[in-house]
Amino acid sequence: MLNPTIPTEFRHLCRVGQLDRPTPGLAPGYVQANLVVLPYDLAFEFLLFCLRNPKPCPILDVTDVGDPEPKLIALGADIRTDLPRYCIFRHGQLIEETTDICEFWRDDLVAFLIGCSFSFETAMLNAGLSVRHIEESKNVPMYKTSIDCLANRTFSSPLVVSMRPLTPQDAIRAVEVTSRFAKAHGSPIHIGNPEQLGITDLSCPDYGDAVTIREGEVPVFWACGVTTQTAIARAKPEFAITHAPGHMFISDWRDEMLAS
Amino acid sequence: MLNPTIPTEFRHLCRVGQLDRPTPGLAPGYVQANLVVLPYDLAFEFLLFCLRNPKPCPILDVTDVGDPEPKLIALGADIRTDLPRYCIFRHGQLIEETTDICEFWRDDLVAFLIGCSFSFETAMLNAGLSVRHIEESKNVPMYKTSIDCLANRTFSSPLVVSMRPLTPQDAIRAVEVTSRFAKAHGSPIHIGNPEQLGITDLSCPDYGDAVTIREGEVPVFWACGVTTQTAIARAKPEFAITHAPGHMFISDWRDEMLAS
Repeated sequence: MLNPTIPTEFRHLCRVGQLDRPTPGLAPGYVQANLVVLPYDLAFEFLLFCLRNPKPCPILDVTDVGDPEPKLIALGADIRTDLPRYCIFRHGQLIEETTDICEFWRDDLVAFLIGCSFSFETAMLNAGLSVRHIEESKNVPMYKTSIDCLANRTFSSPLVVSMRPLTPQDAIRAVEVTSRFAKAHGSPIHIGNPEQLGITDLSCPDYGDAVTIREGEVPVFWACGVTTQTAIARAKPEFAITHAPGHMFISDWRDEMLAS
Repeated sequence: MLNPTIPTEFRHLCRVGQLDRPTPGLAPGYVQANLVVLPYDLAFEFLLFCLRNPKPCPILDVTDVGDPEPKLIALGADIRTDLPRYCIFRHGQLIEETTDICEFWRDDLVAFLIGCSFSFETAMLNAGLSVRHIEESKNVPMYKTSIDCLANRTFSSPLVVSMRPLTPQDAIRAVEVTSRFAKAHGSPIHIGNPEQLGITDLSCPDYGDAVTIREGEVPVFWACGVTTQTAIARAKPEFAITHAPGHMFISDWRDEMLAS
């Protein structure tokens, strides 16, 4: 009986088609990652976009051209089979969701593994901080902002942020705790005033679910990996693959291996 | 009268041909960077090599294809003119040293700015630690090791290290101080035994100058940016440009902006 809380066994269950569900809470303590797969002719420009916008797009690993093994963060893994669910895009349009991308794989594809907020949320919980959407069993609320990422000739995007409400004292502690996790979006990008980010209504997130903001709490905003998806939707590449929302890659790295 | 301790003025002096000397000690407190310029068709593979080997090759900035402006670390700068001296390589062979690369510039070139040890040496000096080669007015001793960097289909290299002798207590303090500067090679890769790195004679460095190791001191080894140069020498690209040894790019970033 395989144990999905161990990354190698989780990935094996995905590979043999026995696991198809969202990954929050699975393999606690291990780094989960967003997946983006693009043709080689866009790989340099996409990598440049990530390097210039490290808070929303922290690069954890990049595969060799045509090679599905992310050697840094999960030696022996195969990104074609080892995630529970994928989205296939052509010219920016979602054409299919699938649990295996072997039939879509090509020799010119490059896979990018990008840090996600689960690592710093675990650190917040360990520090005794509230993570409201987890308390309320919801998806984290995410908002498009009026801040533009640094663009290049192929990729551009508004910065997308996630929001967690905290008291001002806890917000300060959250800055301390999350700043150690630069490869998982790091410290917040804003505390307090959504309008400064061009967000007019916190109760209407662009992605995910609205959460309760209690008396005396302020909204705290972190850069969000969905920014890569909006960049791809804008660039409309001939072909792209991503993880299905919430269905992340689980690496062999421990959260603490990301921390400074 | 322009002041070379201010980065914009230092770069202007280079641009107008009035400054042609090594940069250690110039513009103290500002981040200096190694320069590598390669054709676009090698850019992705080189970036991958750097990302997989972040201790010797910490990426600070990458320019858009054909654009000589490093927009992240020095808005308005022009890497074709703003360094004091450059090396031009064809097929891995040094063919020329020059103070200006305008005549060599091409629309398909990409420039990489890579962190260097000056930032962490300043932090060491500020912490009261000895930096022997500075005390002895020498170049830092550097050694090829028997450790292979993570290679890809185009770039590979032995890890090159620099060495600074310290007492064991100071070596511990040096780990604390330099670990904050991940984008300037970060913490040491080894303390104590050169043979474990395949180094047989500390008095014969592969690059730079030997320095005195006093009674009770141990050699402390940091990953070194010369690793990128050995990778390029091995790959023998049709065309490449680097800074001339010791003649670095000086950015607008303060050393503390690199620190975690």
